[in-house]
Amino acid sequence: MDRLPGFRDFYPEPLPNTDVWSADARNYIFNAWRSTARRYGFREYDGPPLEPLELFTTKSGDEIVGQLYNFVDKGERSISLRPEMTPTLARMVAAHERAYKKPIKWFAIPQLFRYERQQKGRLREHFQFNADIIGENDPAADAEIIALLIDSLRALKLTEDDFVIRLSSRQAWQQFFAQRCSDPAKSYDFYQIIDKLEREDPTVSRTKLDKLGFNYDDVTGFITASQPTPELQRVLDNLAARGLGGFVKIDYNVIRGLAYYTGVVFEAFDKKGEFRAIAGGGRYDNLVKLMSGGKVDLPALGFGMGDVVLLELLKARGLLPKFDAGVDVFCLIEDEALRADSLKLITELRSAGKVVEYSFTPLKPDKQFKRAMELNAANTARLERTADGAFQVKVKNLKTREERVLGLAEAVGAI
Amino acid sequence: MDRLPGFRDFYPEPLPNTDVWSADARNYIFNAWRSTARRYGFREYDGPPLEPLELFTTKSGDEIVGQLYNFVDKGERSISLRPEMTPTLARMVAAHERAYKKPIKWFAIPQLFRYERQQKGRLREHFQFNADIIGENDPAADAEIIALLIDSLRALKLTEDDFVIRLSSRQAWQQFFAQRCSDPAKSYDFYQIIDKLEREDPTVSRTKLDKLGFNYDDVTGFITASQPTPELQRVLDNLAARGLGGFVKIDYNVIRGLAYYTGVVFEAFDKKGEFRAIAGGGRYDNLVKLMSGGKVDLPALGFGMGDVVLLELLKARGLLPKFDAGVDVFCLIEDEALRADSLKLITELRSAGKVVEYSFTPLKPDKQFKRAMELNAANTARLERTADGAFQVKVKNLKTREERVLGLAEAVGAI
Repeated sequence: MDRLPGFRDFYPEPLPNTDVWSADARNYIFNAWRSTARRYGFREYDGPPLEPLELFTTKSGDEIVGQLYNFVDKGERSISLRPEMTPTLARMVAAHERAYKKPIKWFAIPQLFRYERQQKGRLREHFQFNADIIGENDPAADAEIIALLIDSLRALKLTEDDFVIRLSSRQAWQQFFAQRCSDPAKSYDFYQIIDKLEREDPTVSRTKLDKLGFNYDDVTGFITASQPTPELQRVLDNLAARGLGGFVKIDYNVIRGLAYYTGVVFEAFDKKGEFRAIAGGGRYDNLVKLMSGGKVDLPALGFGMGDVVLLELLKARGLLPKFDAGVDVFCLIEDEALRADSLKLITELRSAGKVVEYSFTPLKPDKQFKRAMELNAANTARLERTADGAFQVKVKNLKTREERVLGLAEAVGAI
Repeated sequence: MDRLPGFRDFYPEPLPNTDVWSADARNYIFNAWRSTARRYGFREYDGPPLEPLELFTTKSGDEIVGQLYNFVDKGERSISLRPEMTPTLARMVAAHERAYKKPIKWFAIPQLFRYERQQKGRLREHFQFNADIIGENDPAADAEIIALLIDSLRALKLTEDDFVIRLSSRQAWQQFFAQRCSDPAKSYDFYQIIDKLEREDPTVSRTKLDKLGFNYDDVTGFITASQPTPELQRVLDNLAARGLGGFVKIDYNVIRGLAYYTGVVFEAFDKKGEFRAIAGGGRYDNLVKLMSGGKVDLPALGFGMGDVVLLELLKARGLLPKFDAGVDVFCLIEDEALRADSLKLITELRSAGKVVEYSFTPLKPDKQFKRAMELNAANTARLERTADGAFQVKVKNLKTREERVLGLAEAVGAI
């Protein structure tokens, strides 16, 4: 029996083969995300992986249903596995925003699900780091969220040479649009063309823009000029003050496909252009109001960063550490008469925070030592009785091969 | 729009009301589970929350479907949200066991789902700490897994006064049964009666046992005598050697409802008897073979511990710490001309691992200080320019109210 297509098993390293994923690498990434978010004062939240289908159609319209893992449950409810976290966040914030001082700074690491029938072999789930600031209009918040994004990647040892944040503005594009077209109904189609500009054949884009009443060269000229809006300039200055100016550049090719962005938008890319976007986000000042049925009106902004592209990038750049069980001590039990006392030593070492391994059953000394080496243990510890009946522990550092003879209490503290 | 019934939102503390759950308490429990498992040399794994329905019916029969969140997906597959982790573990181990030295010691913290239509108001999901040892017959492994269970609860500050592990043996009951009944077909019904013995009216149990050809007093006499099997005695001795003897007692009332246990079984209970079982587990030597269609035959044992009862117990015993954002430094920006340089200081403090907060927008000094107090920040830091134009940082410890004046580089290291 195999797992479902598009889903992943996560195994401890070393991995049995390339068909499975590393639980250790996943935790390494999660820890970097979590610790960086905390340093920035973000608090963790979580919601249910299953939500009413309506939560997602309210935000994204009925078209999204084709991409969802949606069902009718035994209570006749239309439900869906979450394809993104923002609707849940908006629901949670709207329900209890009064209990929290603004701005609210929250993060989560949800597993998200999409059922796309046509894309065989593609993943149907991934984990995504979501960080959002709710209740702050000032571009200082946009700079803060982008700084968090940068530092989350730096925590994984990625540098200015590895990635760049392409910074853009929905407002800049809205202004561009308004100066050239008086029919707001055309704006959605216009943004879709801009969103595809880099990937699409220029003649196709030119024709599409012509049809809508825009000029291709006018559009590309606007992109090339890269004139920051006053708001973007404030974000740039803020990041420069933090010493992070080298990680960002204005790039109006970025517009973000989703309809709900209202201000600064951004995407993180690897500098070699080998991978899809590492992360993306922006300001969505009207969404909380929409999702709360008009009850709560709070400006908001945030980003999402998935684990899949990021892991590919870290692998390609050789930035994943070698993972093992991190065994501090392998306890050698060479005299079975000392097994009970060795178990006591093992318990005390573990109580002192050490990772301790040993053989459950009698095993020849050389086999035990071999196992300690296989586990990449830092030390071995062997309990012995001295001539006068007292206990002593021989502690051997497996890197330096240096051996120390210690008292029992001393050994627990010294390893 | 509300969340689905039986699902939980997890909010940062302090919580807005009692209707929601604490993301901080959840992480506190997860961290205790994870760090204890690691000290015992257990490695983390994970599988998909969605699996083929067949994975669960193979293990538990078709009756389980009534309790599952099961669906047909857009590819016409019968699938289910996982109600337990063991089938996924067995599937994963069977697929790649050759790559791992035995015994395999693995743990996971999956979210599990059950749809029980009749039980309104009860949760339909919970998180469960799963730890298992695969490939070891020796009772030393049973003792190791029970020691891990005990230490996971001790890591949350629960003591011998708070909980006890009730230890039993399927083999002891099998022997009891075989000595009194020659029809193995009756064994399942017999075990079900034993499983309910403590909760059921004695006259009902007596009648049921009579019908099956057993004597009620004979059964209760066997339970009261509590004679450990040789295997259980080895587990008891092993735990006593570790200094954990006070946490366990033989109690043959425990038999575990599930059909697949084969040896030592156990459950953890609060000593006051206020709550349902905190955890339960045992040896299931035939399951990996069953789940792998006979391909892989490995002995196995493990336990599961849910987050819901545990959290209730920790609350009742006053053992949950007070959670906050853990802010190390609130950076006061009283002179807007120093905002850019303050942002630099903030970035450096965060790079040094500190949790740093500040106001995104200009705010009166007393309001900033008030916010620092609300956040329970350990320190405030205020960047200033001295008469000769150099920077200095005034660092104030908010507990002692002691203030120090430090150089810029010095401040980053000193907080």
